[in-house]
Amino acid sequence: MSKKFTNYYEVAYYDVDVTRSMKIPSMLSVIIKTSEDQCDLLGCGEDFVASFGLGWIITNYEIQISRIPKSGEKIAITTQATAYNKYFCYRNFWIHDELGNECVFVKSTFVLMDQKNRKMHNVLPELIEPFECEKIKNIYRGEKIQKIRNDHSSSSFYKVRFFDIDGNKHVNNAIYFNWLLDVLDYDFLMNYQPTKINIRFDKEVEYGQEIESHYEIEENETEKITKHEIRIGQQTCCTANIFWKIHD
Amino acid sequence: MSKKFTNYYEVAYYDVDVTRSMKIPSMLSVIIKTSEDQCDLLGCGEDFVASFGLGWIITNYEIQISRIPKSGEKIAITTQATAYNKYFCYRNFWIHDELGNECVFVKSTFVLMDQKNRKMHNVLPELIEPFECEKIKNIYRGEKIQKIRNDHSSSSFYKVRFFDIDGNKHVNNAIYFNWLLDVLDYDFLMNYQPTKINIRFDKEVEYGQEIESHYEIEENETEKITKHEIRIGQQTCCTANIFWKIHD
Repeated sequence: MSKKFTNYYEVAYYDVDVTRSMKIPSMLSVIIKTSEDQCDLLGCGEDFVASFGLGWIITNYEIQISRIPKSGEKIAITTQATAYNKYFCYRNFWIHDELGNECVFVKSTFVLMDQKNRKMHNVLPELIEPFECEKIKNIYRGEKIQKIRNDHSSSSFYKVRFFDIDGNKHVNNAIYFNWLLDVLDYDFLMNYQPTKINIRFDKEVEYGQEIESHYEIEENETEKITKHEIRIGQQTCCTANIFWKIHD
Repeated sequence: MSKKFTNYYEVAYYDVDVTRSMKIPSMLSVIIKTSEDQCDLLGCGEDFVASFGLGWIITNYEIQISRIPKSGEKIAITTQATAYNKYFCYRNFWIHDELGNECVFVKSTFVLMDQKNRKMHNVLPELIEPFECEKIKNIYRGEKIQKIRNDHSSSSFYKVRFFDIDGNKHVNNAIYFNWLLDVLDYDFLMNYQPTKINIRFDKEVEYGQEIESHYEIEENETEKITKHEIRIGQQTCCTANIFWKIHD
């Protein structure tokens, strides 16, 4: 069993949206902080990774949401590196409320990127062994993300802002959710909340670029699904499917 | 001497910009949380204020920055309601580092707004007495904010996003700093850091509106000043002056 690590956090007024529910970008920000804190604790933090000319990037998330924490709630965020193979490291996250109920469960895939040539690098033993997780042969293929049909999509443009880039000069993954969700209209976001999000990051977006956030809503009798793509010109940078239910 | 209240906070990776310095919007977010927490502690929190049909809004800040906290730093945020008159409540904030050095000092003015007619309401004793601050006759007139000269200004447009609005359906004050600062170019923001910010909020901005963030840079031998205005059409919503020094 690999090592688990837990952080505690009180959801602040600035973490929530107009329904006082924790914003998805804030949720992602606090879960990633937990994995960073675990890395620091185990002596393989960002600076150590950078000493090999490498950095971790996240290629996808599968987010299961049972209940979205509200403003003022005290939550526990737990992370565990579960397995790795030649290129991919798999890490889970959980958010629990004060009563110990699971609110959010996230599966994620991390890869090492060479800082110079921006290419994927094989996983180094020094950077994964401290977590004591299993080396596996197979590659986990997540749920398939359905693409949007271009002829049915709407879109808006967003410019990458100075404050969207972090200490590594990257656009933080959490920021993409601002662009993905803001295109949906006010009534939709007031009346529905996500129950599942599958997202894949294909290409990094950079400061000053203008991205186009495309979406399409699909509904059948039992559920509402939104399909999303972040594009720069013809290049797809990110794809996502979000499943929704009526807001609590 | 009126009551002081202190929160402790560790600056997270998502609170900092590309220079690993705490973003101004994050700084404002954490200081306002401190005043909200003090109000809750003294039994005059948001819900109590709302029971009178009122809400607090902030009309201006004078922010003195000695040193901007960095990612990972543990800071103490202290607040104190210092005085009030018929309409205005004056509140100070301090951010100190772990060694007790003052990093940031903020003077602010709060007013009560009637939630229905959106007009200023006189200060109610029930809402101010718990802080045990002095009632005064005079009105504190902050430092004059210099306007920009239209013929010298540049500007960019920003649309108010769903995640820019908080649990009170307002655009949080901290969000304005995204618009104010993002217009400055990358090299400027990398090479300079603010030492003083005077800002006044004249009119509320709402979800879906498109604002225009104007700025002008003025420099003399000893300092660099940027003058800012947030406008919607011909209406000025916010004015600010920011004083800069070479980045540490």
